[in-house]
Amino acid sequence: MLSEHTHGQASRTARITGLEVTDVRFPTSKTLDGSDAMNPEPDYSAAYVTICTDDPDHPAGHALAFTTGRGNDIQVRAIEALSDLVVGRHVEDVCADLGGLSRALVHDPQFRWLGPEKGVIHMAAGAVVNAAWDLAARRANLPLWQYMSQLSPEQLVDCVDFRYLSDALTPQQALELLKRAHDGRAEREAHLLATGYPAYTTTPGWLGYSDEKLARLAAEAVKDGFRQIKLKVGADVEDDVRRMRIAREVVGPEIRVAVDANQRWDVAEAIEWMSRLAPYDPWWIEEPTFPDDVLAHAAIRRAVAPIKVATGEHGANRVMFKQMLQAGAIDVLQLDAARVAGVNENIAILLLAAQYETPVCPHAGGVGLCEMVQHLSMFDYVAVSGTTQDRVIEYVDHLHEHFTAPVRIRNGHYVTPTVPGGGGQMLVDSVNTHRFPDGPVWSGYDPLSSAAPQTSTD
Amino acid sequence: MLSEHTHGQASRTARITGLEVTDVRFPTSKTLDGSDAMNPEPDYSAAYVTICTDDPDHPAGHALAFTTGRGNDIQVRAIEALSDLVVGRHVEDVCADLGGLSRALVHDPQFRWLGPEKGVIHMAAGAVVNAAWDLAARRANLPLWQYMSQLSPEQLVDCVDFRYLSDALTPQQALELLKRAHDGRAEREAHLLATGYPAYTTTPGWLGYSDEKLARLAAEAVKDGFRQIKLKVGADVEDDVRRMRIAREVVGPEIRVAVDANQRWDVAEAIEWMSRLAPYDPWWIEEPTFPDDVLAHAAIRRAVAPIKVATGEHGANRVMFKQMLQAGAIDVLQLDAARVAGVNENIAILLLAAQYETPVCPHAGGVGLCEMVQHLSMFDYVAVSGTTQDRVIEYVDHLHEHFTAPVRIRNGHYVTPTVPGGGGQMLVDSVNTHRFPDGPVWSGYDPLSSAAPQTSTD
Repeated sequence: MLSEHTHGQASRTARITGLEVTDVRFPTSKTLDGSDAMNPEPDYSAAYVTICTDDPDHPAGHALAFTTGRGNDIQVRAIEALSDLVVGRHVEDVCADLGGLSRALVHDPQFRWLGPEKGVIHMAAGAVVNAAWDLAARRANLPLWQYMSQLSPEQLVDCVDFRYLSDALTPQQALELLKRAHDGRAEREAHLLATGYPAYTTTPGWLGYSDEKLARLAAEAVKDGFRQIKLKVGADVEDDVRRMRIAREVVGPEIRVAVDANQRWDVAEAIEWMSRLAPYDPWWIEEPTFPDDVLAHAAIRRAVAPIKVATGEHGANRVMFKQMLQAGAIDVLQLDAARVAGVNENIAILLLAAQYETPVCPHAGGVGLCEMVQHLSMFDYVAVSGTTQDRVIEYVDHLHEHFTAPVRIRNGHYVTPTVPGGGGQMLVDSVNTHRFPDGPVWSGYDPLSSAAPQTSTD
Repeated sequence: MLSEHTHGQASRTARITGLEVTDVRFPTSKTLDGSDAMNPEPDYSAAYVTICTDDPDHPAGHALAFTTGRGNDIQVRAIEALSDLVVGRHVEDVCADLGGLSRALVHDPQFRWLGPEKGVIHMAAGAVVNAAWDLAARRANLPLWQYMSQLSPEQLVDCVDFRYLSDALTPQQALELLKRAHDGRAEREAHLLATGYPAYTTTPGWLGYSDEKLARLAAEAVKDGFRQIKLKVGADVEDDVRRMRIAREVVGPEIRVAVDANQRWDVAEAIEWMSRLAPYDPWWIEEPTFPDDVLAHAAIRRAVAPIKVATGEHGANRVMFKQMLQAGAIDVLQLDAARVAGVNENIAILLLAAQYETPVCPHAGGVGLCEMVQHLSMFDYVAVSGTTQDRVIEYVDHLHEHFTAPVRIRNGHYVTPTVPGGGGQMLVDSVNTHRFPDGPVWSGYDPLSSAAPQTSTD
């Protein structure tokens, strides 16, 4: 169906020749960048996948699954295991039917048992699907957001697996949503290219940072044009009250200050804790409790309003997001580029959010998540929700230098990317340097000790 | 806390010396044993784990994670990855604090990212935890159900991770439940040893079977003393109506006939399909839709009553079961021995079910699931719910011959096991013969083709 986007005679016979998967890890535990109440010492990592083709004009598509260190090898193994479902396919067929590829990966009846549609095997499918979209966008010579945005409503509906969604969203309803957004695409695309997409920054608020560092980084964020910052909370309530007070004093009343508990609480504890922070006007509480717990999020939301409830970075699949929306459990939907089964499932999630008129504010950070997820928000603005009202993409200022097209931030906005592809391509030198366990960054390091290596390139 | 159950001076210094993990697969796709609407050609498989110790009296504990073929190698790799969290520990310490072991495995902050608490990494934790319980029961020279049943209410509460449960069940409530069940333990244990535990059989109802085979096996099941059988449904409604009619005619009105859709439907389709089967009085509809979908199960239950709704074999963790109970989404809770994080999490699930007065009818079949899960139901009867009313353990008559203590069925009941341990130990010869890909059963077989090998030991 998308075959008009492929080019050249040679590509018609091109095949996928292999999946290359590499265990890439960054020793972030050394500096406590990324530390929070549930992830005290993460080593941000990527199971980095390259779909290789025999088309010299478009030799590869790239993406990754993000992990926090130990277990990245399991994620690598899971992606490798999907090779037989992909290698040997015609590139043009794959790019013309990305919905079909997605279904083949997600619904393989034997692999499916390992989820179903969750965890390691689902993230593996997502990495492969995202690499295929990267390849398709490159072949169209477009950045992914633009490649997605110029698909017709019918083509987009064709990308989505509506199984288990029909009690909330039918293909016909999705088509109507997309057709309503069809007018004005060109204007929104031009606006996006001119101004970018609003961002918020998590950089000031890691738990491992001192009060002074928090205050300094919060002030810098405002000066840099951000209208929202975020603090990690959940380890100690008195510390959180103090840090929230400092942040509010520094940024003033107009800047939104969100907080993020990274699943630390049960229901009653979340409500009590947020009552302590409420005087400082938190914008949202993110991941107050376990990400599978729809009913708990709904109970917390009822109790902490008007503070908003946000979750989604660990939302396992479209069915969990569907229920969060059906139950009125969230005010803000935080999809992640690499947690679910890739672009196709994230289109489903964007459509669900639009159906329930719920703003999507993606999770990012990690390794390459900013680079990848910006395309989904920009596609949403151009072709689905048609608005950036109350929508911001998370921004964390780590590890971008390892990507071939690192995100750029200007005046608190993501600069709209114009480089072809989906953003997930890493620099060859970065991959080789950080390859685990044999890359130079990791020489002499014991992955189970809490001590990070003494040398690092970042 | 459980140290009174360890014996001998030598064991006090014993250590865990290794985790041995083997990829074991049975070519069940050859005969369509185990075929259903979502699993047309499974090769029942086990990531089989042995905790090795240097105690010559109690050298090992055994358990497994069950899969349906492709991806079993990923599951093996995940269990191997947990070795560093287990190897080197003192055996006595591990057996005295199985709650601590469980928490260490489930809450490792880096591995946790791969779930959290779901999928491959969670089943890996479950396999290791179950092997540790097997070892602890062997050291106490007791079958697992009996070892668990003689723990005090306080010890049992100590085994449970109450995080995310407190809006439904507090440690104090759990303690009260267990104390109420404390009286009468001895009588129930004696009754259990005399009569066994009620079973139902899925053997007649696989989708791949002919009508004649269905009728013959259903009649045999009744003759063998089963009071409940189960049919797989969900591929074709006319076929299902015919098969349900045949089954009902064969077994008569008194025998319960459950049906199992293996997640095949959306909400409206489930309701419509069950309305077609309703004239034949199905006892429960199992897995009508996606296992994560609490709200869909609740909607289906409201619509199909008095037909019961059952689910749980893919219930990812205690939080999903909690919500199913809170939402009134199920009549029957079908825990699985190898899907969640092992015995500890299943104690939590049994306590939740008791709190909501919901019968537990475990999922079994697969590889070794009958052997393992019977202990949980028997423990529940002796020490938690105190009843077998409306409770039956699934029985499937496949692959038992590969275990050192295969289940035995007598007059429609599981014969109460008296052999020490948790039931998950396989015969060395079975492991070697079915080892994938190099065991003799798999020689010359392409795992991605749908053709099963031409030789099989079962």
